[in-house]
Amino acid sequence: MAEEVKLFRNWSSPFALRVVWALQLKGVPYETIYEDLSEKSSLLLHYNPIHKKIPVLVHNGKPLAESLVILEYIEETWKQTPLFPEDPYERSTARFWARFGDDHLSPSVFNVFIKQGKEQKEAIARAHGNLKYLEEELRGKKFFSGEKIGYVDLAFGWVANLISVCEEVKGLTLIEHEKHPLLLAWIQNFMDAPIIKESWPPRDKLISKYHARIEFYSSKEAAEK
Amino acid sequence: MAEEVKLFRNWSSPFALRVVWALQLKGVPYETIYEDLSEKSSLLLHYNPIHKKIPVLVHNGKPLAESLVILEYIEETWKQTPLFPEDPYERSTARFWARFGDDHLSPSVFNVFIKQGKEQKEAIARAHGNLKYLEEELRGKKFFSGEKIGYVDLAFGWVANLISVCEEVKGLTLIEHEKHPLLLAWIQNFMDAPIIKESWPPRDKLISKYHARIEFYSSKEAAEK
Repeated sequence: MAEEVKLFRNWSSPFALRVVWALQLKGVPYETIYEDLSEKSSLLLHYNPIHKKIPVLVHNGKPLAESLVILEYIEETWKQTPLFPEDPYERSTARFWARFGDDHLSPSVFNVFIKQGKEQKEAIARAHGNLKYLEEELRGKKFFSGEKIGYVDLAFGWVANLISVCEEVKGLTLIEHEKHPLLLAWIQNFMDAPIIKESWPPRDKLISKYHARIEFYSSKEAAEK
Repeated sequence: MAEEVKLFRNWSSPFALRVVWALQLKGVPYETIYEDLSEKSSLLLHYNPIHKKIPVLVHNGKPLAESLVILEYIEETWKQTPLFPEDPYERSTARFWARFGDDHLSPSVFNVFIKQGKEQKEAIARAHGNLKYLEEELRGKKFFSGEKIGYVDLAFGWVANLISVCEEVKGLTLIEHEKHPLLLAWIQNFMDAPIIKESWPPRDKLISKYHARIEFYSSKEAAEK
């Protein structure tokens, strides 16, 4: 049977990009279905009835949701160009960092851009505390996964992809040359990798999208005081 | 080299119990270190410097944190009595449910017991919406993982272990005979499994612990209004 691989995504979601990059790195041919998230297709709702979100990967008719879960599936299904380390302990460490990114780093960074005054200062301190772990993790390595891009790099794609966009929108610097030289080098290395670069969303579109998002969430924050 | 397996836990944490149960089901011998969470040992802080939490599994000197990550490691390291399905799609589905439990079901259930009035009603509706997925998932099965206890059952251990405790503390019924017959049957089957039962925390101690916790978080909620 011919493989049928379909990816439901939009143009910018960092969660969808993880899947795009994983498929590209492994050279898995797939069809892209672009969703308008303000008017989700009935097919998307059918395939992801619980979260109603992109990305969804459909492999031979079977749907998968949740980007980190999808990456595990891609790794187990298409063995070429491994994204995970082989050693079980290193695999667990990779999973640990991916969860750390989504559960701890991401909300701490997000708060930096939507909070004000004292709360923003606290948010910056918290985000810096978390970014320090990434800096340490990169010591002696080009990528989080070593010499080549792997699962943890894909999971942290949004760090490369969105933090500098939000910095520009808000006119502040979160990732600093003095504090985070290895992380800045990683961002550059990651962006420069041909397969990653190919699917990088246009910066000007990201700027206007995140300008609106940050404004929306900042007003919501202020209104809830 | 003789295997050295140490588990840092406390007496009641449902996250630690996942690891206890996984090791017991696989028959992996291990040493237990009980932590006093009001005064964490320097060893725990050394092994889990980021989250400073139990459970931590230390295998031949190497520490692992985050219960779901630890379960993956246990599965990959000790192959006997598989906890995950073999098929990659089913493995992904299992991971999906485990994350659904921690990211969506758990906060929705928790809110039922700490919110008041209209907000509590909304929380119940949301929790029922989520519990419905579990009910559907159990159709035709004894356990979430099929005929035997597996990863998803362990991940949902807190549903069996803590919801009825919180129900008793608050004098309300969240899991209902009419709406959730399969889930109630699963709770009974899970509790009755010898290895699960062995490590079940004493109900009277859970009641007094969760009485205090619910009171604490309810007052916090009320104070933040």
